[in-house]
Amino acid sequence: MHAYSRDAHAIYRQSFAIIRSEADLSRIPADLEDIAVRVAHACGMPDIIDALVFSEGAGATGRAALEGGAPILCDCRMVAEGITRARLPADNAVICTLNDEPVRAMAREMDTTRSAAAVELWRPHLAGSIVAVGNAPTALFHLLAMLDDPETPRPALILGFPVGYVGAVESKDELAANSRGVPFVAVSGRRGGSAMVAAAVNALGREAHG
Amino acid sequence: MHAYSRDAHAIYRQSFAIIRSEADLSRIPADLEDIAVRVAHACGMPDIIDALVFSEGAGATGRAALEGGAPILCDCRMVAEGITRARLPADNAVICTLNDEPVRAMAREMDTTRSAAAVELWRPHLAGSIVAVGNAPTALFHLLAMLDDPETPRPALILGFPVGYVGAVESKDELAANSRGVPFVAVSGRRGGSAMVAAAVNALGREAHG
Repeated sequence: MHAYSRDAHAIYRQSFAIIRSEADLSRIPADLEDIAVRVAHACGMPDIIDALVFSEGAGATGRAALEGGAPILCDCRMVAEGITRARLPADNAVICTLNDEPVRAMAREMDTTRSAAAVELWRPHLAGSIVAVGNAPTALFHLLAMLDDPETPRPALILGFPVGYVGAVESKDELAANSRGVPFVAVSGRRGGSAMVAAAVNALGREAHG
Repeated sequence: MHAYSRDAHAIYRQSFAIIRSEADLSRIPADLEDIAVRVAHACGMPDIIDALVFSEGAGATGRAALEGGAPILCDCRMVAEGITRARLPADNAVICTLNDEPVRAMAREMDTTRSAAAVELWRPHLAGSIVAVGNAPTALFHLLAMLDDPETPRPALILGFPVGYVGAVESKDELAANSRGVPFVAVSGRRGGSAMVAAAVNALGREAHG
């Protein structure tokens, strides 16, 4: 077997250097560079950076929200697990309501998925939050529908990274076309996932290795 | 906003139908078809199926092991979270040692990553297990080095899906070139990740929606 690199910090550094050498970052604003590089790091695909869509200032807004103590609302447990707690600047709450007791019955009553029903339970935490969708298109769709009501509290930032074949493209296109006044970062197309959106959250945090 | 599909079962069915219509499954043996389709489902990329490498009978072996009660050894918490417990046929243990107390000190002493050190703690569970690596190339490299010792108990199946730019390609090439007599499924190249390998485990389980 060949020798291999065993130094975690060196592996990180080398990985980020490879991404920067291969990816086109010219279109990415300075406040989103960390997000772009870390999302590419999470998936092994530098060209994912070409698929990023975002509103101006989204990175700075997200970083300020996180420093101000914003909770992070995750659509599934994998996203919550992927967030490196040591990077969170304000011991931010990481909330996933998907497995909360009422969700199954709510989904039946609302005639929708558990992922969408779980978003209803975000309401008390929504104001100023960081929303991290890394799995379910229906979660993002339902959030956007909730935000169509001007009374719904606004998140500080929506990270839209649902993945897949049914609704993923459409939900992210809807977010990019009309984010209901909320700053956003998303990856267009079918690609996405919990590792990518957790990497985006981690990029908004402080320097730490976890 | 456009109408969108809210029926989880229908979304699954439609997604799998899209994958089957777009992907080339001709090269995939029958016992790996579910794995191939579910891995493609997890990442939104039907062409990931072209990157699968495997030993003959790996799917059937993995399924039998799982039904026989095999523990599932995961290299990170995201993999463990991605495994749908309702699909496991024998209430199989899902084990992740990455955050076990001794790991940090072991990594220092072994001069390697925490991910690799954590694999040392798999030894008591290794015989007949399903190994699911979805993050760290160093975890897969260290496992292969352990298996170079003929005294090391053999897993039933290695699912090799580490992701990234440093060591991911090399560790999976090493697995495919010499799996130390252990059946394996891997995705060659830089791509991989916790969602893909969790999907592969879920594909070996029984039919259930989670």
